[in-house]
Amino acid sequence: MRAVVYDGGVRLADVPEPRPAHGEALVRVLTAGICRTDLEILKGYMGFKGVPGHEFVGIVEACSNPHLEGKRVVGEINCVCHRCRYCRLEMPQHCMNRTVLGIAGRNGAFAEYLVLPEENLHLVPNSIRDDVAAFTEPVAAAFRITEQVAIGEDDRVIVLGDGKLGQLCAQVLWLHTKHLVCVGKYPWKLELLKDLHINIARHDDPLEPGADVVVDATGSPDGLRRALELVRPEGTVVLKTTVADATPVDLSQPVVNEVKIIGSRCGPFRPALEALAMGNVEVRPMITETHVLAHALHALERAAAGAVMKVLLHI
Amino acid sequence: MRAVVYDGGVRLADVPEPRPAHGEALVRVLTAGICRTDLEILKGYMGFKGVPGHEFVGIVEACSNPHLEGKRVVGEINCVCHRCRYCRLEMPQHCMNRTVLGIAGRNGAFAEYLVLPEENLHLVPNSIRDDVAAFTEPVAAAFRITEQVAIGEDDRVIVLGDGKLGQLCAQVLWLHTKHLVCVGKYPWKLELLKDLHINIARHDDPLEPGADVVVDATGSPDGLRRALELVRPEGTVVLKTTVADATPVDLSQPVVNEVKIIGSRCGPFRPALEALAMGNVEVRPMITETHVLAHALHALERAAAGAVMKVLLHI
Repeated sequence: MRAVVYDGGVRLADVPEPRPAHGEALVRVLTAGICRTDLEILKGYMGFKGVPGHEFVGIVEACSNPHLEGKRVVGEINCVCHRCRYCRLEMPQHCMNRTVLGIAGRNGAFAEYLVLPEENLHLVPNSIRDDVAAFTEPVAAAFRITEQVAIGEDDRVIVLGDGKLGQLCAQVLWLHTKHLVCVGKYPWKLELLKDLHINIARHDDPLEPGADVVVDATGSPDGLRRALELVRPEGTVVLKTTVADATPVDLSQPVVNEVKIIGSRCGPFRPALEALAMGNVEVRPMITETHVLAHALHALERAAAGAVMKVLLHI
Repeated sequence: MRAVVYDGGVRLADVPEPRPAHGEALVRVLTAGICRTDLEILKGYMGFKGVPGHEFVGIVEACSNPHLEGKRVVGEINCVCHRCRYCRLEMPQHCMNRTVLGIAGRNGAFAEYLVLPEENLHLVPNSIRDDVAAFTEPVAAAFRITEQVAIGEDDRVIVLGDGKLGQLCAQVLWLHTKHLVCVGKYPWKLELLKDLHINIARHDDPLEPGADVVVDATGSPDGLRRALELVRPEGTVVLKTTVADATPVDLSQPVVNEVKIIGSRCGPFRPALEALAMGNVEVRPMITETHVLAHALHALERAAAGAVMKVLLHI
């Protein structure tokens, strides 16, 4: 089958079709999304080698569960052992022996086929189009925040970052409180949120500090510093940014202000699918370009360029 | 009255006796403790000018409440407005208009007299000696952790730092779990904890990672980095260290591991006094030297030297 392969350099290659192990399903990929993490992986992040890609929708071609076969699915990316300490503590996403689709120890979605444990798969309602369903994983990551931080309708929330993840976080948290503003650098990106009637601000606009919750989805080392300026004492900063470099942070203020800083990664698929099905989260305006797998290298270049939001691959 | 005064340089000086405002008490200081924060203040931290010192026990000489007059007291250090947003949110320690004894906008305890709002004062049980009562404020700071993080008897806790605050945190958290180890650099300091039957380790000993809670009380920029290595996914790092410099931190691991980092400052006096009265926290072995106020500058030099724990001033 054709697949994007990274082994220090990136290329399109013919590779053997993956074979599902016991309990795994073979999935024919329909559409895959290119994420910032994929671009970092192509720079060596996580030391991953193989087929990247972890946002997808596909059709189950083979599996042991007859209810899944032939069905359209999305899939959670952490494949876990169910035996280690963290699995037993009901934190399977932190399984010590996990592989992660297209990120760690398991080939991913930029290919004609992938395999995932059947337990990772979720049926996609018919009303959700392929290009929308491909967003389930990042929408779930935004919903993760609501599992970690109680956000009430009177809470004031600032989302830093107008990129894909920032916008999804803003849309999801907007369901919890209207005292929210999404802060970004790019007027054309912020415009997408404005169309959804979500409050926006430019990064150089003066912002009232004292927010209950600040989400850093800037993807920039400077995001945490800014978040710490804006959060109230005993407030919460949610870190969605994984910056590879060590970031210099003045930690005396968060100590004096007793701020809580919490890292946030993968999230629950069920509320994400529901929000996409109900139209509570609107992702179509974020799709800038769609390319076929044969043009995947070009698509990756485009995704790395400045003036795009989501780039999808039709497999 | 005689007082230590910092105005860019530090000196012993004659200054006017403070006058209590409405609702404030005049307290004759008996014993004051020198804290690391005091030493930072003498280097310019917080931009404070005036009389430093915030750990003390004293006698109320004048106040409007007859039940307090003549009594031996300790005092909470944050003096608050009761009107601002954070006071109304029941976080008076984060009052936007606060002064802080010997730290911000209010003269402190390295003097014959100080004034504090009567509401800040706590009566000291007779069974607590002056030199022990002077530890109430830092013991309360250690108890603050138990207000912020639920620590169960099965939780594994690592306290980084064998200095005064590290040892107090270790002693207080030891009351919650015996799966605790205090990690330090100085065998003679760690020996004090060993005498209390608290588990100790040298900083270069191999430590099992995956702790539920790691407290950074190292006072070193490196403490957070080490804490992040030792905490489990979804675990908690409590920051007690206020380092003036910006610290470079690799934040991708805490995001991937969804670690919670929480700043921790002042704490509740009541459980601190109770623990001191009951002997549940043992501070006397930590007292290295006691000096009279006339030798305060020497005492401050000694406190800044390496080979001491607590230095007290007898006023």
